[in-house]
Amino acid sequence: MKTLEAQVITSEDLLKHWQGHRALTRRLIEIFPEKDFFEFSIGGMRPFAKLVDELLAIAAPALKGIVNRDSKPYTEGEEKLIFKAQYLEKWDQSTSEINKYWEQLSVEDFSENFNLFGQYEFPIIQNILYFIDNEVHHRGQAYVYLRALNIEPPFFWERQ
Amino acid sequence: MKTLEAQVITSEDLLKHWQGHRALTRRLIEIFPEKDFFEFSIGGMRPFAKLVDELLAIAAPALKGIVNRDSKPYTEGEEKLIFKAQYLEKWDQSTSEINKYWEQLSVEDFSENFNLFGQYEFPIIQNILYFIDNEVHHRGQAYVYLRALNIEPPFFWERQ
Repeated sequence: MKTLEAQVITSEDLLKHWQGHRALTRRLIEIFPEKDFFEFSIGGMRPFAKLVDELLAIAAPALKGIVNRDSKPYTEGEEKLIFKAQYLEKWDQSTSEINKYWEQLSVEDFSENFNLFGQYEFPIIQNILYFIDNEVHHRGQAYVYLRALNIEPPFFWERQ
Repeated sequence: MKTLEAQVITSEDLLKHWQGHRALTRRLIEIFPEKDFFEFSIGGMRPFAKLVDELLAIAAPALKGIVNRDSKPYTEGEEKLIFKAQYLEKWDQSTSEINKYWEQLSVEDFSENFNLFGQYEFPIIQNILYFIDNEVHHRGQAYVYLRALNIEPPFFWERQ
């Protein structure tokens, strides 16, 4: 039985870890000036709004796909959001959806393979760690945008 | 018994996950032009060399501290490295040390509290996730530096 192997984090703690990161990302969305959120960029990279489109297109939809074992393709930015307030609202909706879908994950699910978005065939735990890493990665980019805009970003360890 | 709770990743897989991230960070060190590695910066942030000083000061020393339950304070950049080649050498040494110390971690250790560097009193799993997140965060910043330098960074999902 898989769970008798050397396992090191509970499902509950992993959710808390992820939502902690999501709370910090939300704080970054809040702190960006409205215009810069949609327009500011460095070196031809996407502005933060586009990065957040990606994060929103992954988190709740991906977890829904996992829970329902539905490999429907990835789609991004289907709803066109044009104000930061809409992003924050959508972020909060995703927060609730993630909590809801997470409850439907059993311990056994994490080690099962699933072909996420019909493209990423990995154990579910690896896909979930990827969501978190990808968010931290893009948020790290947004930290540079804020610094370049001469705005003090929140502390990296603030997760409430 | 802790391990009978809903635990979702093995110690072995978590090490592999971390070392995969470290392989990608190593690739970024390699790809930086020598001068820019030490000097290039945006918005008053640290150049990548200084960020790597931090990553090196955390990874192997922190894990050594955890394994020996030694809370000695954090120190950074004690050896003054002045070439990228020295950073890469030190990076590889850390890779081996991490593997060595990791073997000394038992499953029970991960849920135990430890006061890392005499400053960060958390369950060991949380400290280890922090090392990984902090690396992904700073590496995300280095991706922006590379883009600003008009250099194509490696794919985020390359972890070999």
